[in-house]
Amino acid sequence: MALDDILAAFKDGAIEADEASRRIRASFYQNVGQPSGGHSTLDSDRLARTGASEVIYGAGKSAAEIADLVEALVGTGQNALVTRTTPEAYEQVLERTAIARYHEAASAITATVQEPAGADTLIAVITAGTSDAPVAEEAAVTAAFYGNPVLRIRDVGVSGLHRLLARLDEIRQARVVIVVAGMEGALPSVVGGLVEAPVISVPTSVGYGAAFGGVTALLGMLSSCAAGLAVVNIDNGFGAGYLAHKINRL
Amino acid sequence: MALDDILAAFKDGAIEADEASRRIRASFYQNVGQPSGGHSTLDSDRLARTGASEVIYGAGKSAAEIADLVEALVGTGQNALVTRTTPEAYEQVLERTAIARYHEAASAITATVQEPAGADTLIAVITAGTSDAPVAEEAAVTAAFYGNPVLRIRDVGVSGLHRLLARLDEIRQARVVIVVAGMEGALPSVVGGLVEAPVISVPTSVGYGAAFGGVTALLGMLSSCAAGLAVVNIDNGFGAGYLAHKINRL
Amino acid sequence: MALDDILAAFKDGAIEADEASRRIRASFYQNVGQPSGGHSTLDSDRLARTGASEVIYGAGKSAAEIADLVEALVGTGQNALVTRTTPEAYEQVLERTAIARYHEAASAITATVQEPAGADTLIAVITAGTSDAPVAEEAAVTAAFYGNPVLRIRDVGVSGLHRLLARLDEIRQARVVIVVAGMEGALPSVVGGLVEAPVISVPTSVGYGAAFGGVTALLGMLSSCAAGLAVVNIDNGFGAGYLAHKINRL
Amino acid sequence: MALDDILAAFKDGAIEADEASRRIRASFYQNVGQPSGGHSTLDSDRLARTGASEVIYGAGKSAAEIADLVEALVGTGQNALVTRTTPEAYEQVLERTAIARYHEAASAITATVQEPAGADTLIAVITAGTSDAPVAEEAAVTAAFYGNPVLRIRDVGVSGLHRLLARLDEIRQARVVIVVAGMEGALPSVVGGLVEAPVISVPTSVGYGAAFGGVTALLGMLSSCAAGLAVVNIDNGFGAGYLAHKINRL
Amino acid sequence: MALDDILAAFKDGAIEADEASRRIRASFYQNVGQPSGGHSTLDSDRLARTGASEVIYGAGKSAAEIADLVEALVGTGQNALVTRTTPEAYEQVLERTAIARYHEAASAITATVQEPAGADTLIAVITAGTSDAPVAEEAAVTAAFYGNPVLRIRDVGVSGLHRLLARLDEIRQARVVIVVAGMEGALPSVVGGLVEAPVISVPTSVGYGAAFGGVTALLGMLSSCAAGLAVVNIDNGFGAGYLAHKINRL
Amino acid sequence: MALDDILAAFKDGAIEADEASRRIRASFYQNVGQPSGGHSTLDSDRLARTGASEVIYGAGKSAAEIADLVEALVGTGQNALVTRTTPEAYEQVLERTAIARYHEAASAITATVQEPAGADTLIAVITAGTSDAPVAEEAAVTAAFYGNPVLRIRDVGVSGLHRLLARLDEIRQARVVIVVAGMEGALPSVVGGLVEAPVISVPTSVGYGAAFGGVTALLGMLSSCAAGLAVVNIDNGFGAGYLAHKINRL
Amino acid sequence: MALDDILAAFKDGAIEADEASRRIRASFYQNVGQPSGGHSTLDSDRLARTGASEVIYGAGKSAAEIADLVEALVGTGQNALVTRTTPEAYEQVLERTAIARYHEAASAITATVQEPAGADTLIAVITAGTSDAPVAEEAAVTAAFYGNPVLRIRDVGVSGLHRLLARLDEIRQARVVIVVAGMEGALPSVVGGLVEAPVISVPTSVGYGAAFGGVTALLGMLSSCAAGLAVVNIDNGFGAGYLAHKINRL
Amino acid sequence: MALDDILAAFKDGAIEADEASRRIRASFYQNVGQPSGGHSTLDSDRLARTGASEVIYGAGKSAAEIADLVEALVGTGQNALVTRTTPEAYEQVLERTAIARYHEAASAITATVQEPAGADTLIAVITAGTSDAPVAEEAAVTAAFYGNPVLRIRDVGVSGLHRLLARLDEIRQARVVIVVAGMEGALPSVVGGLVEAPVISVPTSVGYGAAFGGVTALLGMLSSCAAGLAVVNIDNGFGAGYLAHKINRL
Repeated sequence: MALDDILAAFKDGAIEADEASRRIRASFYQNVGQPSGGHSTLDSDRLARTGASEVIYGAGKSAAEIADLVEALVGTGQNALVTRTTPEAYEQVLERTAIARYHEAASAITATVQEPAGADTLIAVITAGTSDAPVAEEAAVTAAFYGNPVLRIRDVGVSGLHRLLARLDEIRQARVVIVVAGMEGALPSVVGGLVEAPVISVPTSVGYGAAFGGVTALLGMLSSCAAGLAVVNIDNGFGAGYLAHKINRL
Repeated sequence: MALDDILAAFKDGAIEADEASRRIRASFYQNVGQPSGGHSTLDSDRLARTGASEVIYGAGKSAAEIADLVEALVGTGQNALVTRTTPEAYEQVLERTAIARYHEAASAITATVQEPAGADTLIAVITAGTSDAPVAEEAAVTAAFYGNPVLRIRDVGVSGLHRLLARLDEIRQARVVIVVAGMEGALPSVVGGLVEAPVISVPTSVGYGAAFGGVTALLGMLSSCAAGLAVVNIDNGFGAGYLAHKINRL
Repeated sequence: MALDDILAAFKDGAIEADEASRRIRASFYQNVGQPSGGHSTLDSDRLARTGASEVIYGAGKSAAEIADLVEALVGTGQNALVTRTTPEAYEQVLERTAIARYHEAASAITATVQEPAGADTLIAVITAGTSDAPVAEEAAVTAAFYGNPVLRIRDVGVSGLHRLLARLDEIRQARVVIVVAGMEGALPSVVGGLVEAPVISVPTSVGYGAAFGGVTALLGMLSSCAAGLAVVNIDNGFGAGYLAHKINRL
Repeated sequence: MALDDILAAFKDGAIEADEASRRIRASFYQNVGQPSGGHSTLDSDRLARTGASEVIYGAGKSAAEIADLVEALVGTGQNALVTRTTPEAYEQVLERTAIARYHEAASAITATVQEPAGADTLIAVITAGTSDAPVAEEAAVTAAFYGNPVLRIRDVGVSGLHRLLARLDEIRQARVVIVVAGMEGALPSVVGGLVEAPVISVPTSVGYGAAFGGVTALLGMLSSCAAGLAVVNIDNGFGAGYLAHKINRL
Repeated sequence: MALDDILAAFKDGAIEADEASRRIRASFYQNVGQPSGGHSTLDSDRLARTGASEVIYGAGKSAAEIADLVEALVGTGQNALVTRTTPEAYEQVLERTAIARYHEAASAITATVQEPAGADTLIAVITAGTSDAPVAEEAAVTAAFYGNPVLRIRDVGVSGLHRLLARLDEIRQARVVIVVAGMEGALPSVVGGLVEAPVISVPTSVGYGAAFGGVTALLGMLSSCAAGLAVVNIDNGFGAGYLAHKINRL
Repeated sequence: MALDDILAAFKDGAIEADEASRRIRASFYQNVGQPSGGHSTLDSDRLARTGASEVIYGAGKSAAEIADLVEALVGTGQNALVTRTTPEAYEQVLERTAIARYHEAASAITATVQEPAGADTLIAVITAGTSDAPVAEEAAVTAAFYGNPVLRIRDVGVSGLHRLLARLDEIRQARVVIVVAGMEGALPSVVGGLVEAPVISVPTSVGYGAAFGGVTALLGMLSSCAAGLAVVNIDNGFGAGYLAHKINRL
Repeated sequence: MALDDILAAFKDGAIEADEASRRIRASFYQNVGQPSGGHSTLDSDRLARTGASEVIYGAGKSAAEIADLVEALVGTGQNALVTRTTPEAYEQVLERTAIARYHEAASAITATVQEPAGADTLIAVITAGTSDAPVAEEAAVTAAFYGNPVLRIRDVGVSGLHRLLARLDEIRQARVVIVVAGMEGALPSVVGGLVEAPVISVPTSVGYGAAFGGVTALLGMLSSCAAGLAVVNIDNGFGAGYLAHKINRL
Repeated sequence: MALDDILAAFKDGAIEADEASRRIRASFYQNVGQPSGGHSTLDSDRLARTGASEVIYGAGKSAAEIADLVEALVGTGQNALVTRTTPEAYEQVLERTAIARYHEAASAITATVQEPAGADTLIAVITAGTSDAPVAEEAAVTAAFYGNPVLRIRDVGVSGLHRLLARLDEIRQARVVIVVAGMEGALPSVVGGLVEAPVISVPTSVGYGAAFGGVTALLGMLSSCAAGLAVVNIDNGFGAGYLAHKINRL
């Protein structure tokens, strides 16, 4: 229930002052969980403010906490996305809401109450290697969750350039391009020099030794000779998908 | 001269095969500087490929090299932007082309042969502190160089939140928001939770001790609890302005 | 038994010289554990010197060593606090002293022989996210162990500022404020700019990639644009609670 | 002029609505500097909110900007403190306000419009070595600026313990203790185990090689075996003095 | 068999040229293990060259490899010390040589063929905390292996100085002092300022967060304000014990 | 089937245009795996382009993905090498192709369809210690996979120099020398000063504490006082073997 | 004078025993400089042992020391190369030997007594950007010093791939390829996937912020997805040129 | 004047109680410098406690402060050593005491009031390269200051091993060996495997790129495969010389 509706209902006498006050407060934040004040403070106003409802970062939360949060979101008519989660959490979520779906490759749960307004334009998600797939899937699931069509291009790293060049026409159809790469993270530099769309780079923790769990790819993307790459955190597929959505809806 | 025009001229007999070949090659890259092969290989095709002509990174180049490169760009009808440069380089550039202009606060040179197609929508450039100004100016000059109107909001860091909140309505007019901050780099997290537009975060080297020349701000922005921040390199005002332009023109 | 009492008893002839000597020495330190000299040297004088008895850091100690130390403290009439411990250690402690209590959310054991002199003024413990709870609980349990009333405010991170602003009046009731945050650790900067009380910042290891297990939050708090934040080690809830107590008792 | 006074004046008709509006806004923030909106946004409300007016961090600001800011603070009846500044800046400040004073050992400027309400209780500032003096002086000048009496104890590092022990009685007179140390930064651990007062540790960049410009001292203080040390940034004498004041005024 | 003896035997005709050659080679190095050339090249000459036979670093070696190496050393009449090993390896060693002994607290195996020439002077091994014990035991077992009497002083860290001061007379009896400490590693600085003997500092990986697994203690010891501390690697009890022996035998 | 053969077959009418097109494309890259486009994009052209077919990096790939890739390579007549793999993956590979062989010490799988053209000249693989063996074996297996004879020299680290010197004549027979070392990584510096052949240095993660999992050895090799060492990533036996092959075949 | 010649001369009676002894010793090492033993110990045997005479690393040496060393090398008939030197040192060198030549772009001095045996095969030196030139020149001058023909390809970084592709045929003529790149250091990965020759990667300190003075490029090259890149130290053009020579002469 | 003498004088009535008290206090510490309490607290008791009087670390101290401290030491009959100082400081010192001497190569000042009791046994100081000389000289001057004979061996790094081997007999005469090396710091590992004396390793900041100002050499020495190396801070020649003296006097 939006703020205007609450105020109208109050003016019309449909609800009393304390009920109006309770609803207004709830439209801004909501304590979730028991006991005493709850374990989380859900940001109910985020959709209105930023155009996207709050997303649940699953890591470090118990299955019960995740289920509480999904239930709270769905219960107020919002779509729910949980990232970095597990089949165990999914089971508990399913007991609360039957519409939940598990995305194994992305380790994500979605629960879609109402279909998002679909975008016409494409978001491309490109990986440098096979092992970058989980991060790429998190990006792709996130972009799709917000209603964006997604094109996946896999395993086209720079050590075999023709694999990338062969698919350049496809990639150029996209309005936003996400490039996911580990090791030295060179693929975004190459793609950034070849396309007109904004490029979002996602370093992954793929690699060993001097790859330092994604740090090398991260630093490489930040230092890229290709102008204007957007960089997100290591393995942050969600952040890339969310940013791509924010750009694609413009 | 575009590729199609060269081919047409060749077909029409206006130019011979070797002249056509020379011009085609030149439309892709151009050796700049003397002697023997030149010091630089200008990417003449970048405008066609990525929608923006090559930009000259001034650091580590001599004034003569910079002047050579500006002359080469302007000589082929392209606008030129030089970042991280000096008044000394500007003097040499001026001797080659009178249209060059020096932007002191941004340490940048621009030479505009033809006005860029202006955008209608606004790019906001926000700083956390007074000392972040040079980086913010590089971003603003870059965005303006590509024809974007720019709104500057200065010194509204998170330790005095009301300064930011007081200007939120203005900021929400922007289609893309650039946030420039040093020290702990917290401002983009706060702004990212308040606006709908994509937010580009620029860490600066402002601060001392544990600020580690911008590394702390950089890591903070990458680890932000606000979803989907785009991050660029430390002090990389140019990258932020360029990325903002790529998004704003969509 | 305090030093003055031992000396008085000696003067009165109630104890002999060697007994006096033994007791004086024991009032300063006490070898705990077997065999031969013991595994630990308990600092029995700390209460007199610093106003708080020694606290047992549980990590890296065996359950038996912990039980020995709690028994030694309780046996000399002091309250005991064990941090970073386990249910297994708690079981062994319980066999030695029935007054021990386990605080699951904080992974701490307390054994209170005599209630501490209660403070009137409040210590607030605020978290940025749900996953910061274990560290916050360690701080809260520590503060309560020393007799301070504690106010808990949960999950009010900077990406949804109104959650914090809505509870500002409550927070301003506190004489000392502890702020617990992971990821970019921006919350203390914002709180530090809003309240008059001293603010103690606790970085947590919550986050991934560029959060570097709490290092980013730590560096951010140290580099904060808000003046005069006190910072403690990553995940050091105990240190924050202890420092808050030292300030609150002034 | 405080908010209540402005509102009263408006109600009484002493000022018009737009004048009231201008004054209210100015009581919250003030744009300082020319041209167009100014280089800084002074947080005029900070005194009301946090109990201490804004302090000017001099590094990275021009002498003119510093003079503008001091003038703005003094012009509205607030005391001004500038840290990390230079004699050159002081000269420009003096031209604007004759009450300014330069503290050479601390590289700080103060301009005191009205004496602060003096505290009765003492803040001790202790250094490990002679070379830690500039940071200690910044802390001492800051504490004194806010009206606290300061006790200075110099060069009593842990490699000659008796120097510290000889002055322990003096140190125990203080209500808050600041310990300033470079190299391995061990002094706060020792002091923290000897006194009842809260201890604020300031790592300095004194040392070479593995001292890493203060990082080693910083990490040592954060990892201290002494419970509850408050740590601030490397060389952050101001932060320590400010925090000591916040605690001492309780 | 020493080089001189082999040559004498050869001259006397007791052995042939190829046997002499084989024995000479074996007095320098010995391939140990199967198949084909062996897994290790034992440095049989080390005793003659450096005054101490080769020691087996157990980590990363299989139980069988360790047993091979102990057998090879003992088989040539040398004493054997294995560090960083396990009860499993000990079992296999026992099958080869009954004189082996396992030191649980130090995770070490010794096999003493002939008692080392005992030293008269003492090596002290001091720990800052209970959790530093395993490293200290490795140092103590190593020192004892080479025939040095060892004095153990436990848990006398700098946050309770009197514990250390109370035992200073004992410590001053030692000709060489080993100090083992984790966290901020401050104890060697204090001891180094109090005793005349050379002090060997061993940082341990005890601590969390900013202790960085012993790095902070290591850097602190290297940057110590106490002159002339010898530092060894993190958790390197063996290195400290070996160095203490090299000094004590002078 | 090579590009020329496809073109000839097409010209001769042996295959149609779309079959020719399909084969040409397949000679460049091949999508491997199900569903929809596959999990990997095999670079079929690498042999023609770089002289060596693609090698499968096993880490982070499922056994099924590895089996798919080996099958695809072998199915097109190429030899397959899988590094950093497991017995489980080997079992699945064996089900697809009986010629596969598992190299336990190197954790590698090879499947040789046709023997590589053998080199006459030797590649030496030298280790500093017993624990460096797995990395050295990966290098040796790789070199042998490409048809190079390999000489293994084990456990000749710099703390017992004569072990190395005794085998110098053997080492000087090699045309390329690979030196594998952990801890401080000093062996390549010594070897590099003694031989004429190019020396490839491989740092290993052997060591503890300040060895930082191979970083110290890596940095030491990069900073070596011996001129012109080639360095590869930590534990990168494959890279060293591959580079040695590239040099040895010249 | 080689060892064999000295021995022959001695046998022939042309020189006495002590002269022979002096000459033999001098053929191995030579103390250079005054007073008392000299400042340097020239490795006169290096040419015989490694195929290349000692090279003088100029950084940190005085002009006089450099001149001494060049004189000593030239005086014994060897060619001399000084890297990282200055025009001032060159002046002093010129006073000792007129054949010295200064290479300004490489900051190197060469003094060629006798032309090296020229190689037939080419070494290519490729740079990613204009600012990489000084390092590339050091590599090129070194390679030429040892008699290798050098091909220079400039400013063909990955953000404008066609610049590289256009020159691929030239590059493929080289027997060894050196790739010099700063920033993210991606160029060697791309080149390594396109050519058959061994590729030597040289990271440069070109870039700012997250480029960390060449560390990012270094880590990227070590973590490259292209197999078997040889990596040398940051800015180590000499090492690359020397290694290329060692390979090219095979 | 020693404690016993003061007490005797007091008992004899030669001095009064307050004079005795003043002298006793002065025998422990001495405030040096003006105004008000002095800039330094000289540890007058250090000689009695540790066998060596306090040494003045010159870096970060003004010439006047250094002169004050030397004067205070010499004035109480102690020898003075100042490290990391300058000719300017020396000039001021000379004005106070004519016996001061400047050691240019070591950047040190000594003022010897009475010759130290000379040791019979030798301390060797070995460098890997010419550029390590300043650090080695600091070590040598320090060792000589305390009365130890010093043997200097220069420029015998591991890339030309025979230079070291040729001088091994000389080195083996030393009772303590100091090895000074930059770059990869491998020399101590080699020396440590060849001699019986304790080896003290000093990493220097010589090198570039991955040498990281001495960090690589430091880590290499700490991780050395040679047992029991003592390591001191980067460039800490003083610490090495002092430790060598402490060992040599045993």
